[in-house]
Amino acid sequence: MEKIMIGPMPYMSVLPTVLVGVNVDGKPNYMTAAWATVASMVPPMVCVAINKARYTAKGIDENGTFSLNVPSLKQVIPTDHCGLVSGKQEDKSGVFQSFYGKLKTAPLAEECPVNIECRLFQSVDCGSHILRIGEVVEIHVDKSCMTDGKPDITKVNPIIYAQLTYFSVGKPFAKAFSEGKKYRKE
Amino acid sequence: MEKIMIGPMPYMSVLPTVLVGVNVDGKPNYMTAAWATVASMVPPMVCVAINKARYTAKGIDENGTFSLNVPSLKQVIPTDHCGLVSGKQEDKSGVFQSFYGKLKTAPLAEECPVNIECRLFQSVDCGSHILRIGEVVEIHVDKSCMTDGKPDITKVNPIIYAQLTYFSVGKPFAKAFSEGKKYRKE
Repeated sequence: MEKIMIGPMPYMSVLPTVLVGVNVDGKPNYMTAAWATVASMVPPMVCVAINKARYTAKGIDENGTFSLNVPSLKQVIPTDHCGLVSGKQEDKSGVFQSFYGKLKTAPLAEECPVNIECRLFQSVDCGSHILRIGEVVEIHVDKSCMTDGKPDITKVNPIIYAQLTYFSVGKPFAKAFSEGKKYRKE
Repeated sequence: MEKIMIGPMPYMSVLPTVLVGVNVDGKPNYMTAAWATVASMVPPMVCVAINKARYTAKGIDENGTFSLNVPSLKQVIPTDHCGLVSGKQEDKSGVFQSFYGKLKTAPLAEECPVNIECRLFQSVDCGSHILRIGEVVEIHVDKSCMTDGKPDITKVNPIIYAQLTYFSVGKPFAKAFSEGKKYRKE
């Protein structure tokens, strides 16, 4: 297989589209982000990379809390809007209907099927972006998007972000921690 | 919309399946991981959460380097195998054909369409897992998986991990930084 070196890039194969919710000066603000993942199992932690210049950075530093909200395909327009417009220029508090959970300063977007409340654990300065690691305090899920007590990806219908495009999730095709049992050394 | 609180969990809507490549005692080893994302744009950085007890942790601490390899759907059996079996119990150096790039201690899996070479930038102890943040030194891409000089998700055909299941990527349905222009306040 011929390989080409494309140089260093901030690349990951598939990324989740989330809305980072913060209060700035007591008002909810939502920013679109895709550089997010799980950081630890026990205690449960997640992380999200946020540019230093973002309005959202101010909210995280102000309160030490933030939320990650998982929009569904049907929220793609307001979701992308929150990536186009800064809270510095426009009040985005009305783009989603906000509610609060256990943390009183991390706004949660009602319309998003999954809302993750986070208490800031650590901020790691990586250059242009600060990686915000947060301990998950509570997760709120739309009842209609659950199966057996957990969020169901086929009902949540999340938005994948890759190469400046939003994609849907495709079909399940193998069980993890199982398919590998078919492996035989050659 | 009725919301249910499911408690704190290590949840993210969609996750990329990657193989973390390290040398342990001079021998390549690959571990399946999904808790990975981009950590910064300038300089380009990625991060991956790895359980403290993993054989892979030893390799990262030994060399200060690691790789993230993006398998395609067709590599699902060896990929899942690398998540079922530890390098402590079994020599996994032959599961993929290894090559080396700019870093001489981060093995790259030839069969995977995208290989990301990383120099360890910082390790953040988050509890059960250590978040390994690495600066991207080089990215190698199969020539056949590129469009306009970049990896093309429809050719790479990466594996999404969610709820103990591997999924394919679905269809593109909107342009990012564009679709949101349709947003109108109600």
